Amino acid sequence: MRAAPLTYRSEEVRTVAVIGCGLIGGAWAAYFLSRGLDVRAYDPLPDGEARLAAVVKDALADLETVGGAQFGQGELSYFVDMAGAVAGADYVQENAPEKIALKQDLLQAIDALAPADVVIGSSTSSFPASDLQAKCAQPQRVVVAHPFNPPHLVPLVEIVRGGLTDPQAQDAAYRFFERIGKAPVRVAKEAVGHLANRMSAALWREAVHIVAEGIASVEDVDRAIRFGPGLRWAIDGPHMLYHLGGGEGGIDAYLRHLGPAQEARWATLGAPTLDADTCGKLIAGVAEEADGRSIGELKARRDRLMIAVLKALAADESGDR
Amino acid sequence: MRAAPLTYRSEEVRTVAVIGCGLIGGAWAAYFLSRGLDVRAYDPLPDGEARLAAVVKDALADLETVGGAQFGQGELSYFVDMAGAVAGADYVQENAPEKIALKQDLLQAIDALAPADVVIGSSTSSFPASDLQAKCAQPQRVVVAHPFNPPHLVPLVEIVRGGLTDPQAQDAAYRFFERIGKAPVRVAKEAVGHLANRMSAALWREAVHIVAEGIASVEDVDRAIRFGPGLRWAIDGPHMLYHLGGGEGGIDAYLRHLGPAQEARWATLGAPTLDADTCGKLIAGVAEEADGRSIGELKARRDRLMIAVLKALAADESGDR
Repeated sequence: MRAAPLTYRSEEVRTVAVIGCGLIGGAWAAYFLSRGLDVRAYDPLPDGEARLAAVVKDALADLETVGGAQFGQGELSYFVDMAGAVAGADYVQENAPEKIALKQDLLQAIDALAPADVVIGSSTSSFPASDLQAKCAQPQRVVVAHPFNPPHLVPLVEIVRGGLTDPQAQDAAYRFFERIGKAPVRVAKEAVGHLANRMSAALWREAVHIVAEGIASVEDVDRAIRFGPGLRWAIDGPHMLYHLGGGEGGIDAYLRHLGPAQEARWATLGAPTLDADTCGKLIAGVAEEADGRSIGELKARRDRLMIAVLKALAADESGDR
Repeated sequence: MRAAPLTYRSEEVRTVAVIGCGLIGGAWAAYFLSRGLDVRAYDPLPDGEARLAAVVKDALADLETVGGAQFGQGELSYFVDMAGAVAGADYVQENAPEKIALKQDLLQAIDALAPADVVIGSSTSSFPASDLQAKCAQPQRVVVAHPFNPPHLVPLVEIVRGGLTDPQAQDAAYRFFERIGKAPVRVAKEAVGHLANRMSAALWREAVHIVAEGIASVEDVDRAIRFGPGLRWAIDGPHMLYHLGGGEGGIDAYLRHLGPAQEARWATLGAPTLDADTCGKLIAGVAEEADGRSIGELKARRDRLMIAVLKALAADESGDR
């Protein structure tokens, strides 16, 4: 491992390299551009540039709608060689397919090209930073910077450090994403699914259990979330909501008075398996809920409503969102 | 058990009895009034009427803001005897404190007063309908009709039937709440926490695990939800989101390709206990996140933002929310 630099670029990032330009990379490119950053993009596919242009165009239109494009748009350059894209970049975002060997080799190559004070972030949803950085000569500046679909709209970016990551590199990535209007979080220890996908998996496990046990239908389970606690989770996380559930005494009172009841409830939660019977119930139930709407229609609806929600939250005058 | 009637009042409900007029009962009263229903309210406390008036006034102002008060307001009458409140009511909503003996006796008394075709719903969050209906002569028309805080704003109402409930009474309650603009769901089998609180408990259990294990801070866990999947859960439930996560093949493809990975992730989820160490971390973490804001300030913020989100969703022109 080569020596870590004294500082990593963060406040001074003006140019970002986007390596891998599918839906994720393209959405990232659009977001960076909307924040006035220049983007240098690379993709190995022959039609990479055209695909990127299409994704960027749609994503920029979404960003215009939510008022996230007021910074003067940056300049997009496309490169057919990776070295060209990485040259001059102050930060690198890698968005290759979820194949560990491919990502390790790619990150090794990026690491060999980028100056030592450039942080390299991976969009991976499934691999620990420790595995990703394994082949790098300067693994200390490699982090996971995991976005959520669609990445140009959802503010969350999970910044995970691996065993060889310099905490200062994680901090630099955190401050960079914070400065450009994202909502970064720090993950201090690697865990399967980082934070949000772990909690989503926990929620879904119980949702599957409820359907498998015949307690409620797929559609009613989904309605119970989106017309109920889902409305609160767009505003407050689970810990804060239990704080508000404790009355004037807050979480302290909640834990004292209702902690044992909560532990008893936890003990009744299910641990379903995705066997043929349960999968059949889920597939049939979702088909009923979708009621003939295609994946494309459902996604368009989700993104349209998410833009409406983000606009409404952004318009809150207190700035206390 | 007396014979069940052929039909229960649903479409024809014009007058609702609200029994117990604290924060929950008051919010219910306001909601019914905003939908043009007359409300007959009863509370045993000497200052019940003044407390109710205050809660109703604030809740009606909220409903005005979200555009839910366009039906011509119903008339509110307050009674110091329960018989007066139940007389002439087409539906009864019970909102007494969460004490089983108290609720059983109260429901027995309501049951003795109300005509056989009037459905009686309990706002309970913790008791099964089977326990609540135990002392009633006509248990077949007793259901749980569980709202979410604040009940005048959150659309979800969980309609649970007990072992002695007539499915037709559950249907009548479902159709009544649907008609007045709520989002009812049917719970076919009793389960601790009904649907939404079970799934909230599952989410929180993993949120507690992440803090207990030092993977991330309380505040970062909350940010990971509200800036991430929380935004989607206001729009789609968990099953639909995994359908959208499966690409063009939907949930079917998701289960085939990623089902095993999901089961592997489930196997890594935590099962924390609320011991002194973990409670200490949660309390300290929430205090840091609250950053000096009082419970009242945090609640006002939540309700203000929830109104903004509900308005944004209601304004969607497609009606496909």
